[in-house]
Amino acid sequence: MPNIFGKLFTVTTWGESHGPAVGAVVDGCPPRLPLDAADIQVELDRRRPGQSDIVTPRQEEDRVEILSGLFEGRTTGTPISMLVRNADQRPAAYDEMKEKFRPSHADYTYQGKFGIRDHRGGGRSSARETIGRVAAGAIARKVLAMGGQALRGTPVEIRAFLTQVHDIAVPTGTLVDFPTLAAVEATAVRCPHGPTAEKMIERIKAVRAEGDSVGGVIECRIRGVPLGLGEPVFDRLEADLAKAMLSLPATKGFEIGSGFAGTRMRGSEHNDAFESRAGQIHTTTNRSGGTQGGISNGEEIVFRVAFKPTATIMRKQATVDLHGAPTELIGRGRHDPCVVPRAVPIVEAMAALVLVDHWLRNSAQVGTFKF
Amino acid sequence: MPNIFGKLFTVTTWGESHGPAVGAVVDGCPPRLPLDAADIQVELDRRRPGQSDIVTPRQEEDRVEILSGLFEGRTTGTPISMLVRNADQRPAAYDEMKEKFRPSHADYTYQGKFGIRDHRGGGRSSARETIGRVAAGAIARKVLAMGGQALRGTPVEIRAFLTQVHDIAVPTGTLVDFPTLAAVEATAVRCPHGPTAEKMIERIKAVRAEGDSVGGVIECRIRGVPLGLGEPVFDRLEADLAKAMLSLPATKGFEIGSGFAGTRMRGSEHNDAFESRAGQIHTTTNRSGGTQGGISNGEEIVFRVAFKPTATIMRKQATVDLHGAPTELIGRGRHDPCVVPRAVPIVEAMAALVLVDHWLRNSAQVGTFKF
Amino acid sequence: MPNIFGKLFTVTTWGESHGPAVGAVVDGCPPRLPLDAADIQVELDRRRPGQSDIVTPRQEEDRVEILSGLFEGRTTGTPISMLVRNADQRPAAYDEMKEKFRPSHADYTYQGKFGIRDHRGGGRSSARETIGRVAAGAIARKVLAMGGQALRGTPVEIRAFLTQVHDIAVPTGTLVDFPTLAAVEATAVRCPHGPTAEKMIERIKAVRAEGDSVGGVIECRIRGVPLGLGEPVFDRLEADLAKAMLSLPATKGFEIGSGFAGTRMRGSEHNDAFESRAGQIHTTTNRSGGTQGGISNGEEIVFRVAFKPTATIMRKQATVDLHGAPTELIGRGRHDPCVVPRAVPIVEAMAALVLVDHWLRNSAQVGTFKF
Amino acid sequence: MPNIFGKLFTVTTWGESHGPAVGAVVDGCPPRLPLDAADIQVELDRRRPGQSDIVTPRQEEDRVEILSGLFEGRTTGTPISMLVRNADQRPAAYDEMKEKFRPSHADYTYQGKFGIRDHRGGGRSSARETIGRVAAGAIARKVLAMGGQALRGTPVEIRAFLTQVHDIAVPTGTLVDFPTLAAVEATAVRCPHGPTAEKMIERIKAVRAEGDSVGGVIECRIRGVPLGLGEPVFDRLEADLAKAMLSLPATKGFEIGSGFAGTRMRGSEHNDAFESRAGQIHTTTNRSGGTQGGISNGEEIVFRVAFKPTATIMRKQATVDLHGAPTELIGRGRHDPCVVPRAVPIVEAMAALVLVDHWLRNSAQVGTFKF
Repeated sequence: MPNIFGKLFTVTTWGESHGPAVGAVVDGCPPRLPLDAADIQVELDRRRPGQSDIVTPRQEEDRVEILSGLFEGRTTGTPISMLVRNADQRPAAYDEMKEKFRPSHADYTYQGKFGIRDHRGGGRSSARETIGRVAAGAIARKVLAMGGQALRGTPVEIRAFLTQVHDIAVPTGTLVDFPTLAAVEATAVRCPHGPTAEKMIERIKAVRAEGDSVGGVIECRIRGVPLGLGEPVFDRLEADLAKAMLSLPATKGFEIGSGFAGTRMRGSEHNDAFESRAGQIHTTTNRSGGTQGGISNGEEIVFRVAFKPTATIMRKQATVDLHGAPTELIGRGRHDPCVVPRAVPIVEAMAALVLVDHWLRNSAQVGTFKF
Repeated sequence: MPNIFGKLFTVTTWGESHGPAVGAVVDGCPPRLPLDAADIQVELDRRRPGQSDIVTPRQEEDRVEILSGLFEGRTTGTPISMLVRNADQRPAAYDEMKEKFRPSHADYTYQGKFGIRDHRGGGRSSARETIGRVAAGAIARKVLAMGGQALRGTPVEIRAFLTQVHDIAVPTGTLVDFPTLAAVEATAVRCPHGPTAEKMIERIKAVRAEGDSVGGVIECRIRGVPLGLGEPVFDRLEADLAKAMLSLPATKGFEIGSGFAGTRMRGSEHNDAFESRAGQIHTTTNRSGGTQGGISNGEEIVFRVAFKPTATIMRKQATVDLHGAPTELIGRGRHDPCVVPRAVPIVEAMAALVLVDHWLRNSAQVGTFKF
Repeated sequence: MPNIFGKLFTVTTWGESHGPAVGAVVDGCPPRLPLDAADIQVELDRRRPGQSDIVTPRQEEDRVEILSGLFEGRTTGTPISMLVRNADQRPAAYDEMKEKFRPSHADYTYQGKFGIRDHRGGGRSSARETIGRVAAGAIARKVLAMGGQALRGTPVEIRAFLTQVHDIAVPTGTLVDFPTLAAVEATAVRCPHGPTAEKMIERIKAVRAEGDSVGGVIECRIRGVPLGLGEPVFDRLEADLAKAMLSLPATKGFEIGSGFAGTRMRGSEHNDAFESRAGQIHTTTNRSGGTQGGISNGEEIVFRVAFKPTATIMRKQATVDLHGAPTELIGRGRHDPCVVPRAVPIVEAMAALVLVDHWLRNSAQVGTFKF
Repeated sequence: MPNIFGKLFTVTTWGESHGPAVGAVVDGCPPRLPLDAADIQVELDRRRPGQSDIVTPRQEEDRVEILSGLFEGRTTGTPISMLVRNADQRPAAYDEMKEKFRPSHADYTYQGKFGIRDHRGGGRSSARETIGRVAAGAIARKVLAMGGQALRGTPVEIRAFLTQVHDIAVPTGTLVDFPTLAAVEATAVRCPHGPTAEKMIERIKAVRAEGDSVGGVIECRIRGVPLGLGEPVFDRLEADLAKAMLSLPATKGFEIGSGFAGTRMRGSEHNDAFESRAGQIHTTTNRSGGTQGGISNGEEIVFRVAFKPTATIMRKQATVDLHGAPTELIGRGRHDPCVVPRAVPIVEAMAALVLVDHWLRNSAQVGTFKF
């Protein structure tokens, strides 16, 4: 079941870039959640191409249709099937890829594994697959927002944003407060630090002009998470977040809290001391990143995801064809010189899916029977 | 099933630091594999404490007993149950922890989640839990070694080692060749670069003398992996490796191939061109780290794992007690000032479990029926 | 994941009777299988209503659209999404059910469990849900037919048929040979024994005239199954078949081989002796029904499924409303007085799903590595 | 994961008849449940051989050791590992079986599937495997008893008993009230209807004297189950019960409520009308057997399981050897001429596992967030 994610709140995604449609089925959603297509559309619109001059000009409306699981505006506890038709396809742009493997793409490995592949637009390995994730994540986000509010008086809020593009990074110590959605959406790169965002945009335009591409880093912060989510030993919260993030196209790394930088600290510097604030136990610092022993501790969850530079570039590259013979190709089609800004809602969607799933699981084990 | 890992080659671990025993059950092992306790003991001996003067002096023999699944020296395809009795326990050393939460440990979150915890030695969150992983991983390694040899004429070899302790790192470009096991095991820190290893050992002794601790980075390289392992879209090989690594105690990050450093490159620098060598398609570079589109491409798999500094330090730290009242505590017991060297066989074990599981899964989908 | 079936060849079904559509996603299908919509349509046509004068006159074309997973007429190893639009809905016919619980239907339990339900046509509990199963099963059947032929020179053939309607049963010892599809499809009740089929049809017409309903028994026989499918101890082949069958609406029982009648025999009568025939080990009798110890033994698999009489009858029945107040209702809408004939392709579909899943699983564990 | 049962409350069993031990690991048990070895021992003692003169005289103490998951007499939410050492083994009694396949045993299929088998005492296919199930089931039963009492003021009670041995059956309409445990345990055959029990015992002694064996039927009734357990469409409560029962050795059939007999009724006879009693909705009859649409309706759950006659008989039988050559064998060792009485606690254990698992699952989906 490699296309199914989650244990209790599960999402199955399906669809290829140039097939008839892409979509997702959510199984296990709590019943009676108010939901309509607009709740999902708003997130799909955030990941849609063609929104600014630094992303792909591919035009797709990406309009979602909900096919099941709702009755009179509420979920019923049965599977929610969602469908987005594909459009604006230019399969001819990919004819060359039928015979040639694009460097650092999935062409060679899909061909090698399955003995067949839909080469048009990357087929299943296309980022269009993430439409299903974002659609399912939109439902998860609503569960977290409304459910958190109802249960604990505070919604769970998930905010991802860019902290780095190529070698341009937000200055250390700049983003202290939890960024607002408005601040993130204010710029085409989704970096809430204005001056850095400007430089990032410039850099993206510059590399695009050269037919090249760049990568970057997304940070994701989550507040309002209750104490207790995450199930040691294998299903630690950070383990499932790491899996979720590394399951996204173009990702090369994940770190939580202090991450790789934490390896350069001493224990006496790194440990998060406990204190009581307003009658509640907290840590004075948050190098742990919101989990200890694989279980959320009630502090902000903070993690970062590394995205490599877009593999498709508008330059001549050496490669081989299906038979191993050397050849060359030049990227065609319409591609983002930097996919990271559009990955922001996708990172948020995956985080939401992990959190809802673990909330349900935690509730089952420790919330059903009280001994 | 939070204590069960894998889909077809599954391992269930159980046990607490100061309970009667720890162990694991492996379900789904291929039949007829030659196996005896010595195959497992050799790996347990590598993770055992008390092997050098820079790790905890806790003395435990950690002798494995195989209770099922073997007949006349071979696996039978039925579950393999393995047991290691606990010994050399000093529960009194943990009396203070019954009432106080150790900073950056799992005490607070286990208590908050479950409403109860075995505080002795960290209970379930103790690194002793990894004995079950190493025991199961030893079986997986044998499957990969013998199975790879038989099927493809080359065993799968997994080699982890330290590349960094605190701010002491192996110089870039130093470790080009696949390190030998002898080179890794030659020093107490399991760093195959001798001069760096010496500095690491010095640093560990220095921080220990100050009652402090340090973290570090493990790199893991795997060769002999066939093309085709990994199942997009959610069960990408790197996603399952990331989950496996972040499920280990004290880990804060995972990266594959170029990792976080790759975010600072351009696409034209980062892409791995294809070429044919000896009639086989290869990449000229390996910034991908051995997978593309979530599927192994036959190149070396290379990933790195970040370990934070040991949370237990021999210094006074501020914390709170069970009731939230401020208090202090000083680490007691016998602890590693740097856990990273002993984590090497654990990282290898988890990698082996992921690979065998994906090998079986790949075989099922693409190897059963040939259309 | 209650709407997901199977471990390696998984199907997720979704959809309600009076929602926009019903469908299924198949994940894990082997690649390169020749497949088109016609392969699926042929089985959907067998379960479609309105095919004879003894079933519901509801008219639905039930035309399948394949949305993903195919390329140039072959499966690609990626998820196959299938969609059937709903039509000929008469939701007004169900207005009364909004407030009243139909006896022996799922109305009360869905309302009690989820606190909400789509009452129109039974919503998710409608037999229309089985469209997704039949569509997925059609793919599984093609895998078994073509795959069995390619691998072993013999296709796996699955043949279900009615042996009983109400108290009219096929005489013992009558159906010895494996029935042909033509013989099964020859009559509206799908009973290959002509004289019995006639009586069954008469009985169904008689009870329908009285506004009543009847149940019956389906026998399913499967030949061409290799030795070795089924995974003890929990995932025995008969255990997964039993689950598959009891997951169908209106089923009340499952038995394999000698079944309940076997409890009245002695061991000396019941045991299946082994013998060699044509160089192959066989049993002389088949009271085991094709499995021993939960594993297929290469003989015909034979099981039977009990279906209760249709719960919807055109008679006044006592019941309660949403508030527990006593009331009465009379069945409306268009219903089968006997659902069993239309359940034949559904039973076959579920059997096919179980067999393909176990074939892949068996192949993974015993077919990947040869020690 | 064929040796793992359940989704949230999972049990992994391991062990062979003549290996060092058998056991089980329970993962997902709610924390803080008071538990000690005596809770488990009492159920193991019920399935133990040597308790009466109609079962096998094999003497095994079957003493359980709990190795993890408890702290100060309560569960901690971590895995509970349980171990029972094997004893009183007479492997020599099985020497003949090394080369010969016993009719209607698992010898041939294990050998064919795995290419190896532990022939001693049936190895993994031995009924000793059920020790792990009974041990895990004992924990599940305590959860249901204490948890049901705490949550709803009524414990869940599970009572299985024999209603048939060979052709001797409890007269229809005799067992109306829920049988007491004392009534069940009063006779060696665990049939609460005294006169029938006497005849059953006579019959078992008679067939044993002839070196033969008989089977029978167990009925299981469960009261105190809340409305709402069971997850359509695939994980219906009766589907998971059917799987659980058919996963037991020697079972050939399962039916719930009216079962196969219900197929001979009309809808107007079969439907369970609703009524209100004491402010609670109930059905006036219970042909449904406690579930509708796959979900428990709050009525008693009633199902029956068919057990074939013991395959091992003390008579000469025709069979073949490993090479397919015809030969004969006579059963040796110590075997029950009728396994059904000892299967009673095993059926109860499996039912308890299914119910706890579904209770946790239901709680997660409909009990976590209230919209």
